[in-house]
Amino acid sequence: MRTEKQPLWQPPAIAPLDQRLVAEMRARIDGKAKPPGSLGRIEDLAIRLGAIWHPTEPGAGNAVLLVFAADHGLTEEGVSQYPSAVTVAMVKTYLAGRASANAFAAASNVTIRVIDAGVAADLPEHPDLIAAKIRMGTANAAREPAMTPQQAGDALTRGYELAISEIQKGADIIALGEMGIGNTASSALLVHRLAPATLTDCVGVGAGQDDAGMARKRAAIEKAAARSDATAPFDVLREFGGLEIAMMAGAVLGAASQRRPVVIDGFISSAAALVAIRLCPAAQDYCVFAHRSAEKGHDIVLAALDAKPLLDLGLRLGEGTGALLAVPLMRAAARLLTDVADLSDVLAGNI
Amino acid sequence: MRTEKQPLWQPPAIAPLDQRLVAEMRARIDGKAKPPGSLGRIEDLAIRLGAIWHPTEPGAGNAVLLVFAADHGLTEEGVSQYPSAVTVAMVKTYLAGRASANAFAAASNVTIRVIDAGVAADLPEHPDLIAAKIRMGTANAAREPAMTPQQAGDALTRGYELAISEIQKGADIIALGEMGIGNTASSALLVHRLAPATLTDCVGVGAGQDDAGMARKRAAIEKAAARSDATAPFDVLREFGGLEIAMMAGAVLGAASQRRPVVIDGFISSAAALVAIRLCPAAQDYCVFAHRSAEKGHDIVLAALDAKPLLDLGLRLGEGTGALLAVPLMRAAARLLTDVADLSDVLAGNI
Repeated sequence: MRTEKQPLWQPPAIAPLDQRLVAEMRARIDGKAKPPGSLGRIEDLAIRLGAIWHPTEPGAGNAVLLVFAADHGLTEEGVSQYPSAVTVAMVKTYLAGRASANAFAAASNVTIRVIDAGVAADLPEHPDLIAAKIRMGTANAAREPAMTPQQAGDALTRGYELAISEIQKGADIIALGEMGIGNTASSALLVHRLAPATLTDCVGVGAGQDDAGMARKRAAIEKAAARSDATAPFDVLREFGGLEIAMMAGAVLGAASQRRPVVIDGFISSAAALVAIRLCPAAQDYCVFAHRSAEKGHDIVLAALDAKPLLDLGLRLGEGTGALLAVPLMRAAARLLTDVADLSDVLAGNI
Repeated sequence: MRTEKQPLWQPPAIAPLDQRLVAEMRARIDGKAKPPGSLGRIEDLAIRLGAIWHPTEPGAGNAVLLVFAADHGLTEEGVSQYPSAVTVAMVKTYLAGRASANAFAAASNVTIRVIDAGVAADLPEHPDLIAAKIRMGTANAAREPAMTPQQAGDALTRGYELAISEIQKGADIIALGEMGIGNTASSALLVHRLAPATLTDCVGVGAGQDDAGMARKRAAIEKAAARSDATAPFDVLREFGGLEIAMMAGAVLGAASQRRPVVIDGFISSAAALVAIRLCPAAQDYCVFAHRSAEKGHDIVLAALDAKPLLDLGLRLGEGTGALLAVPLMRAAARLLTDVADLSDVLAGNI
């Protein structure tokens, strides 16, 4: 474990998938009433879901999207063209059911829960808002650590517990999304240290930036990187943030600890998954990478994890929108395993 | 029109999309509460759905998959490793709800209807089976025309009417699927003549073939191609079949005539769409190409139509499985247009 220095938070025990089960599920799929291999990557997904859920048959009907919101001190450096106030405005939009994530969730019949992981404003109480604020946004990582070790540990723990709580309430699938002005900058730093990769490869336009904005973003990120040489995952997380990312990393570990799949959205969610997987490598067996984001650094994370996302639709919004589009594919995969007849029965006229 | 010689069937009037409406929908999407362009191809889909449905707001909740089944005389030449009896067995499997298409339809909440377009066997009556048999499978296209002009016209008309009937009963989306042993061979001939492309580029392994099987398949296809030099779409269709393909082509035109989107599955469905589009080019505005099939000739059809499919998952089953996976993307796209707040309202605190 790389976190000996951090007694505040210990990675949970996560069992990797049993490769004998994977082979058993492959044989089951090959016996179905269709030419072998003819459902391509849906077969691979079915096999993984079968192995994750074993000995129970996989379910995928109840999916919950957790949208973690937080602010970033890095915005003081002008890393985003949007002010932090947009984070609050978008949280209110989720709660009003009027954001893209709500639209996609309604389309895919997925429940959304919004979590205040660290929005830099007091939010009104709302029945659909989970108040889990660790602090009013991170500190400015260009000048000091984004969080204290205690705060990073608390955020991981809170995300871990939230995922477990949703699973205990009946979620078959946990999907992850986020909102936080400045969080592509924070994610670029995490990916830079944990992939690892050059900063240049990790910094993209985020929600949109002109040349001057990109220069500010790069300068802030370089300043932050120069401030700390951390490479251990917990230390990298607490140095560079953010609170929503830490909570998502915890949620990955929570879902994996319960043997449930967790759907990773785009660049920021993938940065969180990278933190989780660097903390507990076996967690990757439970991660489904939903889509290839148009945000520059995403391919770096995917390559570092040897992960092949399901969709490639040019999305770069976040909010869990890509994860929501992958949920129906997971439902189809689960039903391939549970609902489809064996070819032998079809040919014998037993259907 | 290329069908002057065929008074038995006249292509319907189909209006292309109004490009001013497309621009109007683009402006609406650009005003939504998200960075412009950040939902990539889902935005393009939303724009198209908005223009298709205008002046009504797009709906996508009620989707119906039409699975057309038929047999092919070409199987006499050994083009498939499976006997025609598998077509009947699979129709029974659909009706029992135990095929991959049923599993995916249940996952995506899509209604399935199975159509006997020309299965070479008497099928028992079943409430979910639409009896539309034109003949007991096509004639062997290696030796004679697959259908008479009357039969081809009847199949087109029947598919056209079926799609219209489903839309009149409330379908927002028509999705197409098929089952027919030997139908990749028939499709290869259609694509060869209508893309056009070399036969070599159009012939793939279908449901699976060994080297000897592929040699038989290629020989049969070359024999059929040598028998007729037809290039007009109706003539090509009736020369090379099949009945399910003709009915799917009719269904494409039926959906387009009602200004409703039609989701095209893989190679065979795309061959049918190609027939429809060559008959009525404006029909393409209503076609959503669901996925890139692993079957060899599919890229040829997509390139001929300059069509970019939504998904790329290595599917090559047919049955409408890929179309079913694209339906949730269309639902998300429709809701992006109808459900998501404008950025100006979010920033003004009007949400």
